[in-house]
Amino acid sequence: MNVFVIGIGLIGGSMVKDLRSLYDDIKIFGLDVNKAHAEKALSLGLIDAQTDYDELKKADVVIVSIPVDVQLEVLPKVLDHIDDDTVVMDVGSTKLKVCNVVKDHPKRRNFLATHPIAGTEFSGPEAAINGLFKGKTNIICEVEKTAFKLQEKALKIFADLGMRIRYMDPVAHDKHIAYVSHLSHISSFMLGKTVIEKEKNERDIFDMAGSGFESTVRLAKSSPAMWTPIFKQNKENVIETLEEYIMNLEHFKQLMIDDNFEKIFEEMQDTNHIKEILNGIIVNA
Amino acid sequence: MNVFVIGIGLIGGSMVKDLRSLYDDIKIFGLDVNKAHAEKALSLGLIDAQTDYDELKKADVVIVSIPVDVQLEVLPKVLDHIDDDTVVMDVGSTKLKVCNVVKDHPKRRNFLATHPIAGTEFSGPEAAINGLFKGKTNIICEVEKTAFKLQEKALKIFADLGMRIRYMDPVAHDKHIAYVSHLSHISSFMLGKTVIEKEKNERDIFDMAGSGFESTVRLAKSSPAMWTPIFKQNKENVIETLEEYIMNLEHFKQLMIDDNFEKIFEEMQDTNHIKEILNGIIVNA
Repeated sequence: MNVFVIGIGLIGGSMVKDLRSLYDDIKIFGLDVNKAHAEKALSLGLIDAQTDYDELKKADVVIVSIPVDVQLEVLPKVLDHIDDDTVVMDVGSTKLKVCNVVKDHPKRRNFLATHPIAGTEFSGPEAAINGLFKGKTNIICEVEKTAFKLQEKALKIFADLGMRIRYMDPVAHDKHIAYVSHLSHISSFMLGKTVIEKEKNERDIFDMAGSGFESTVRLAKSSPAMWTPIFKQNKENVIETLEEYIMNLEHFKQLMIDDNFEKIFEEMQDTNHIKEILNGIIVNA
Repeated sequence: MNVFVIGIGLIGGSMVKDLRSLYDDIKIFGLDVNKAHAEKALSLGLIDAQTDYDELKKADVVIVSIPVDVQLEVLPKVLDHIDDDTVVMDVGSTKLKVCNVVKDHPKRRNFLATHPIAGTEFSGPEAAINGLFKGKTNIICEVEKTAFKLQEKALKIFADLGMRIRYMDPVAHDKHIAYVSHLSHISSFMLGKTVIEKEKNERDIFDMAGSGFESTVRLAKSSPAMWTPIFKQNKENVIETLEEYIMNLEHFKQLMIDDNFEKIFEEMQDTNHIKEILNGIIVNA
């Protein structure tokens, strides 16, 4: 099996790392506009060789794992170069724009829109790890627009990676993911910003911050190159979640100003229910 | 050594759990207004016996580990009952009010105000774990108001628990801790609230939420009984941090509305600097 990976960072790199240990007959070709990344991927053994668009015709599977703005240009070009039996999948965190950009492409049936809900706050080929997708959800959009044989090929890979599949339409995907993923990143980035601005003396942050701050602010380590285009593509949904989040914070602040601490207790108690929801995530994972 | 622990939950319970494995000649007495907690602590072997205020005179060390509102009443009463050689320490997340409430007490020199920056999102005696304090910071306030011999006794215990000591005045403590701890909790609680309100169908949260959401929202599992009085006692500082946090979120939202994604990129890049700060925490831990 010839697997081509375009963009060899955390997601693409982790995926081919697992695929290599899963399949004996695999050959992995990599393409990255960042030459240092491509060479690092080669030296780490993530890929067997660097490649270019002209070689894409020999690909069985193409994984496009690049920022969501760049993939709008790259994906049609990839589809232009592939063979009829090739399945091309993206792994982006937004799904509406990518589905729209390929909707009239003659090779639309070779494309599968996916969003594996997996990752860490790190990026680049060195961030690639084995088992990243095990027990995680992969959201597939517009599955009916992909050729059945190619769906099967992709689903076999996801099953071997240990993923659960959920099907959604891209509009619903982008709306829900704004709440459970994009908003978390903004809340974390802005928390980091607020604390850094205030605590000019970093020693104080080292000394006083515990594991609670560390976990809440973890996502503020994420890559701006990856996240800026996500926020841009999902602008309307993200603004809506931000408005609701700010409204809830304003309400909490007002309760404090009013000394209404019984209500503050209730707010927190109601939200404690997140425990069971998170247990659901862990049980399912 | 006779150690008395008043409030046998996560912090008090973890502390005596470590002390028992550190010292051979230890006897641990526990007091908890929650009878179920006291009995659980006994059956878990956290304490050797339940106790009452009249027995406090035989204590060498008293750990007061209860919500910060209750300790304002309990602490003077504890000081009323102890012997001259007893050191009493609190472990609360606010320090100004507790220092004020005992400032004119005849036994003020028996009290040491401490804030071990350690914990988890769980509570109660079952949440007690060994090694919780290892490598963590303990902030001590108004150390000069504690008798020197009793400071020494307490510092020996903290050293044996593996803690680093930082000295601060209570006003500065409450101001800084609002940023690095109290604000994290509110941002997490309100994130949980925003998502729960929107995602009435919890299946969608299970399926779409990844480890990023889980870590950002982790603190929303925390105990309202513990956190409500903290917010109440640190009201002015917490409101100030909330205002700055909301302002940063509003600014981010406005950048999105204005399609100023270059600036959004910069905001995130500047905040990525939190990586080095967190590495500082980890290196120090």
